[in-house]
Amino acid sequence: MKVYLDNAATTAMDPKVLEAMLPYLSQYYGNPSSVHSHGREVRSAIERSRKKVAEILNASPGEIFFTSGGTEADNTALVCTLDSYDIKHVLTSPLEHHAVLHTLEECHKRGHITLDLAQVNEKGEIDMDHLTDWVRKHPKSLVSIMHANNEIGNINDIETIGAVCREYGVFFHSDTVQTMGHYTHDLKTLPIDALVAGGHKFHGPKGSGFLYLNKKNKIRPFIYGGAQERSMRGGTENVYGIVGIAKALELAYAEMHEHQVHMEALKDRFIHQLRDAIPEVSFNGLSADLSKSLYTVLNVSLPPSEENSGMVLFNLDLHGISASGGSACSSGATVGSHVLQALGASAERDSVRFSFSRFNTAEEIDYTVSKLKEMYSVTV
Amino acid sequence: MKVYLDNAATTAMDPKVLEAMLPYLSQYYGNPSSVHSHGREVRSAIERSRKKVAEILNASPGEIFFTSGGTEADNTALVCTLDSYDIKHVLTSPLEHHAVLHTLEECHKRGHITLDLAQVNEKGEIDMDHLTDWVRKHPKSLVSIMHANNEIGNINDIETIGAVCREYGVFFHSDTVQTMGHYTHDLKTLPIDALVAGGHKFHGPKGSGFLYLNKKNKIRPFIYGGAQERSMRGGTENVYGIVGIAKALELAYAEMHEHQVHMEALKDRFIHQLRDAIPEVSFNGLSADLSKSLYTVLNVSLPPSEENSGMVLFNLDLHGISASGGSACSSGATVGSHVLQALGASAERDSVRFSFSRFNTAEEIDYTVSKLKEMYSVTV
Repeated sequence: MKVYLDNAATTAMDPKVLEAMLPYLSQYYGNPSSVHSHGREVRSAIERSRKKVAEILNASPGEIFFTSGGTEADNTALVCTLDSYDIKHVLTSPLEHHAVLHTLEECHKRGHITLDLAQVNEKGEIDMDHLTDWVRKHPKSLVSIMHANNEIGNINDIETIGAVCREYGVFFHSDTVQTMGHYTHDLKTLPIDALVAGGHKFHGPKGSGFLYLNKKNKIRPFIYGGAQERSMRGGTENVYGIVGIAKALELAYAEMHEHQVHMEALKDRFIHQLRDAIPEVSFNGLSADLSKSLYTVLNVSLPPSEENSGMVLFNLDLHGISASGGSACSSGATVGSHVLQALGASAERDSVRFSFSRFNTAEEIDYTVSKLKEMYSVTV
Repeated sequence: MKVYLDNAATTAMDPKVLEAMLPYLSQYYGNPSSVHSHGREVRSAIERSRKKVAEILNASPGEIFFTSGGTEADNTALVCTLDSYDIKHVLTSPLEHHAVLHTLEECHKRGHITLDLAQVNEKGEIDMDHLTDWVRKHPKSLVSIMHANNEIGNINDIETIGAVCREYGVFFHSDTVQTMGHYTHDLKTLPIDALVAGGHKFHGPKGSGFLYLNKKNKIRPFIYGGAQERSMRGGTENVYGIVGIAKALELAYAEMHEHQVHMEALKDRFIHQLRDAIPEVSFNGLSADLSKSLYTVLNVSLPPSEENSGMVLFNLDLHGISASGGSACSSGATVGSHVLQALGASAERDSVRFSFSRFNTAEEIDYTVSKLKEMYSVTV
């Protein structure tokens, strides 16, 4: 049996998304910047996609910029905002994705900004008093806090963080890669300057993403070249990627509630079965709290075990089960997760992230728990 | 009849390229950074593609970095090199693509570099004495000269320019977007530090590109995030784009000579027929000289005409013919080509770029010339 439980790393593309993309991988091949018929039909597909994304998110088409993925969108939002507004102080969290953390660390290394970290407790919860106090003391600064953590699944209250930032005129960026397409974002009411998406996290294509930038902002391009994306990103557009991400978002929103109910049931089943199977199990961050974490992510902390320590992912893989330790975006290795380190997780316990999609089944969960039970019963 | 003669803007994807990509748009969906079986099979496809590209170009796999396209590759080569080596002086040409020109202008605007322009004559030929003199006077600088011009098709002697740069320890970057896949590049003998490719210019996918960076160079990443592309470009890889660009390059090299012979015949036919049809026609740059210009590009200068002035592209489009004025990468408009302006082209004449692919036929050329003849005979 092959079981894919690494959907926070990437998801299988929905066949309906591929179907929408195929015409732009074959007959509609023009350059969208060309004024002739070959170009116009492709330009029109891009603008229809932009309008679709904007409508779904309750934004204006002019606020959506297509990119090559979530990481490029994060880099654009951060580097170009700091540059364009000459911002000198930034607050982020030690639990951010490397797309945010490494980008800001580089800006700090070059002496462009001071970089402070939000205070988090052992569950990964952000100390809002500290954050509010920091914002109050740093007007004209930038705050970057992710919507939900990719490793432990904690959901941050970006409405409240955004409201605090707005009150003090602070630019608020959120890496929403893990929630886009899984939760609703209403950009008419959410007080936010920039958020991002990567298509492949919600059954869309790899190599596609977008940046939402609130229309009151005007920042420099990240990639210089032609006048594409209203001069915000040079380079011939990845047309089929753009068509694909818009279609994927449309499909995600069309049945979001049903998908959520399905995955919450899987996650709940996993938690309960796992507690029965391996009593010493625990869960990192807030991932066992269904009201405070992604329904797509469960981060399991497993007891020390001679047979399995450092080998859990490998042993699961032998049983056909794909899961991940830490963030699989840059490395599937259990070792070196900066998130688990920041939570002070024990180095003696192995942590495995299981992450779900609408394509997973109860049977796959049962199989996975049975294999974990086998693996860990040997050592008891 | 529909005739596509805008192949310098973008090309139709070869059906064999799509065939190679499809498995990575469906069953092989894992994240290449994941260590489990779903990830490994995809990682292997990326590394096979990198090896293929490196072998074709006579480079090492470690010198090939996949990007979202030629523009991102140019930005990386320029911005990150200037930064990493603290280079203060740059020479480029007024005829470069905006991916190079706008990027360097931005670096100059910020006060990071002085920016000088190579001297070009009215045919767009670079003054090599001036260039050599500049290089001699600016050790530890950077020179960026494109291999062939996207609008007028002029081929620059990058072997000689590279040799001059190497002699004086100057970093040499060349925007090879228009020649990659159409001419051979032997990176064991070509004295060059960096060159770039965009897959969609040689029947590969949009949203795919690569940067070749000579292994003696070590520059910072352009996009920060995960450890992808050996920490040179964060972000989950566009797997099917990478597979596609490698396949496209393989196909291009497999029958490059046959394709060249085919397109040279088309271009020659076009030139001769057009001179007969419209005696006042002339050709911009060196594009009528088959030994000194791309066999894919012909830039036609048309006589003033009441019916057609400013309307040539529109009128051609009405006849189903797609061509471009200036560089269609950022705008199909005749107005405002910085290349034609730099050559001192007359504003009273319309310039149209016709660009060919291996899929074009003699019949299409004949049809296009017949329509141009109709359009211009009215006014004679």
